[in-house]
Amino acid sequence: MTQPLEHFHPFIPAGGVGSRLWPLSRADAPKFLLDLTGSGSSLLRATYERLAPLTKDPVMVVTGRGHAGAVSQQLPELSAKDLVLEPSPRDSAAAIGLACMLLERRDPGCVVGSFAADHVIEPASVFQEAVVQAVTAARTGKIVTIGIQPSSPSTGFGYIKADGDLGIEGASSVRGVEQFVEKPDEDTARAYVASGDYLWNAGMFVAPASLMLEHLEANEPELFQGLRTIADAWGTVRQDQVMSRVWESLPKTAIDYAVAEPAAAAGDVAVVPGTFNWDDVGDFAAMSRLNHVGESDDVAVLGENTRVLVDNSSGIVVSDTGRVVALIGVEDIVVVDTPDALLVTTREHAQSVKETVNSLKASGDLDVL
Amino acid sequence: MTQPLEHFHPFIPAGGVGSRLWPLSRADAPKFLLDLTGSGSSLLRATYERLAPLTKDPVMVVTGRGHAGAVSQQLPELSAKDLVLEPSPRDSAAAIGLACMLLERRDPGCVVGSFAADHVIEPASVFQEAVVQAVTAARTGKIVTIGIQPSSPSTGFGYIKADGDLGIEGASSVRGVEQFVEKPDEDTARAYVASGDYLWNAGMFVAPASLMLEHLEANEPELFQGLRTIADAWGTVRQDQVMSRVWESLPKTAIDYAVAEPAAAAGDVAVVPGTFNWDDVGDFAAMSRLNHVGESDDVAVLGENTRVLVDNSSGIVVSDTGRVVALIGVEDIVVVDTPDALLVTTREHAQSVKETVNSLKASGDLDVL
Repeated sequence: MTQPLEHFHPFIPAGGVGSRLWPLSRADAPKFLLDLTGSGSSLLRATYERLAPLTKDPVMVVTGRGHAGAVSQQLPELSAKDLVLEPSPRDSAAAIGLACMLLERRDPGCVVGSFAADHVIEPASVFQEAVVQAVTAARTGKIVTIGIQPSSPSTGFGYIKADGDLGIEGASSVRGVEQFVEKPDEDTARAYVASGDYLWNAGMFVAPASLMLEHLEANEPELFQGLRTIADAWGTVRQDQVMSRVWESLPKTAIDYAVAEPAAAAGDVAVVPGTFNWDDVGDFAAMSRLNHVGESDDVAVLGENTRVLVDNSSGIVVSDTGRVVALIGVEDIVVVDTPDALLVTTREHAQSVKETVNSLKASGDLDVL
Repeated sequence: MTQPLEHFHPFIPAGGVGSRLWPLSRADAPKFLLDLTGSGSSLLRATYERLAPLTKDPVMVVTGRGHAGAVSQQLPELSAKDLVLEPSPRDSAAAIGLACMLLERRDPGCVVGSFAADHVIEPASVFQEAVVQAVTAARTGKIVTIGIQPSSPSTGFGYIKADGDLGIEGASSVRGVEQFVEKPDEDTARAYVASGDYLWNAGMFVAPASLMLEHLEANEPELFQGLRTIADAWGTVRQDQVMSRVWESLPKTAIDYAVAEPAAAAGDVAVVPGTFNWDDVGDFAAMSRLNHVGESDDVAVLGENTRVLVDNSSGIVVSDTGRVVALIGVEDIVVVDTPDALLVTTREHAQSVKETVNSLKASGDLDVL
C-alpha cells in the first residue's frame, strides 16, 4: 500500500473528445466521461481513484465549463476550488500551466503531477510505485515523465529516448532523458523497441511546479503572462471575469513544445519506465482488446440491456439503445449503436473514424457530433 | 396495350413474412407490404397494378386477418367482397383452393390466375402478354404455369421441365410440362440451364377454376370438403363463423403437391416461358441488386431521411430511423436499421438471416419478430 505523499499535488487535465470513438464519444460526452472497459467507472473516475491515495491533498481537475456538471457527478468528493473550468479548449500548455501556477501559489515549492483523464492503467499499485519514484526524482529538481515500456513497435505514439540511470536514492529506476521524438515510421519504431532505450510518451509529468513554470516562461512568455493575470484574480470576485477575458487570448500550444522538449534539451528531464499495463483506448480496436476479445468467433458486447445475436461473427458491439443487434458472417466488425448515429466499421479501420467525424463536421451534421 | 379479358379472374395470395428480410420484414409488416425497390409502391400494390388491366373483373386478394387494414390502405379500390381473410396461415393449397372455389361459384367456367404478392416483375407489358397467352391456353383445358427463363443456375428455386410446343392458336410460346423438379444442386442446375428445357418455377398458375378444383378434390379430398363447407356459408351471415371453425381444421399443404405436380403427371399442365425480368427479392443480396448497386464502392441507401456516410465501403443500408449511418472500410455489407432491431451482415450471408429469425423465435425474443 502506497503512503500518501506530502506537498505532492496530482492534477488531471480532462480535455479532448476522443473523436476516434465516435459515435460513442461526443462533444458533450467526451471519452474521459465514458466507461470504456465495462468496469462501471468512467476513465476519469478510475484516474482519480488511482491518484487520490498518492497525496494528502486534493486531486485537481482541469476541464471545460460544459463538463462541470458531469465531472462533479463522477467525482462527488471533488470540491469546487479543485475544479478548474476552461472557457474553451486552448490546448495542453494553457491547462497544465494554469494548474501548475495555482498549485504553486497554494503550496509554494510543491511537486505537481499531470495525468491524462482518459487512459486505462493496470494494476494501480504498479503505477503508484512509479509515481512515488517520479516524485522522489522530481524533488531533486527534475521534470520526470513516466514512460511506457513498449509492448509493440507502435507508430501511433511519440517516444522518449532514455539515457543512463541517474542513481537517485529511493528512485532506482529513474533514467535521464536524451530527447522526445515524434511518432516514427514502422521501421524506425522497430529499431526503437529493439534498442531497449525508447519508451512510449504517455504525456505524464511529475515535477516541481516552479520548474514547469520556469520553462514555460522561457518558451511561451505571452502564455505565462496571461496565466499570471488569471492567477492574480483567482479566488477573488473577479476570477470568472478575468478567466473569460484572458483565456481566449492565450496562445494555443502543447505542453510538449512549451515545456517538455526544451526542458529535455536543457537536461532537466528524467523518466521512470512504467511497467504497468497502459492503453490510451485510442480507437475501437483498443476497446475490443481491453474487453478481452481473444477467440476468433468472439464478440465483445458493451452496453446495458443489449441483446446481441452472433452467427459466425467476431468483433465488438457497443450499444446503449436496448435494441436487438444481429451479426451474421461479419469478422472483426465494430458496431456502435447510439440513438442518433450508427457506426459500422472493422477493427482494422478503427483509426479512420476521426476522418468520418471531420466529414460530418464539414457537411454541417453537427447534431450528432 | 393489353385488352382486359372476360371471365378471367386474377387473384393474389398474400401470405408469408419473408423472414430473410428481417428486421425489415416482420410478422406485422410482411414482405408484400414493403417497398423494396424504392419505387414508392409496395410489392402488393405493384402486383395489383400489373394484374388489374388484364381483367374486366376485380382482382381478389387472399391474406391474413391481421393484414386487412394494411392491405385495404394499399389497395383503396379493393372492395370488401374481394378481400378474403384467412384466420391463420394454412399454406398455399387452402388459400388458392378457396379463391378458386369462390370464383368458380361467382363466374362458373371462368379462368383464374394465381400470382404471388411479393415478386418484382418488369416490364409489366411483357408479363401481361405472357398472361394473355396463358389464359388462351388455359381455355383449352390446361393448368398453365408461367415459368421464368433462368438468368443463372440458381439452386434456390424449383424448376419446370418443359416439353414440346403445344401449337395452341394465339398462344404460340406455350409448351407442355413434363414435370416439376425440386431445388437442384449446383451441377444439376447448370445442366438444367444448359439444356434450355428448364424454367424457374415462380408459382404462377393460370387455369380453369374447375380444373384446379378437380385435381384438388382428387388429391386432397379433406381439404376440398372443408373449402366447400366454407364456400357454402360464404356471403351469408354465417360466413365468418364457419370460416373460423373450419379453416383451422384444413390440412396444411402446398399447391405444388396438392395440384400442380399430380396435374403435370396427368398431362394437364402447360407452361409459358416468361421473358420479363423477375426477382422474388428473397434476401438483402437481391435488394442490393434491385436497387442498382453495381460499382465496387457503391452503397445503396433505402429509407427516407437517411443520412449515410460512406468511406471505402460497399453494400446496402436500409434505415427508417432517421439516424446517421457511417460505414468505414466494410465491403459488401448489409445494414438494416430499424427502431428496435439492427442487422449487420454481408451480401454473401444474406440467406442466413432466416436462421437468425429462428434463433430469436427459439430464445423468446418475439417482440422484434
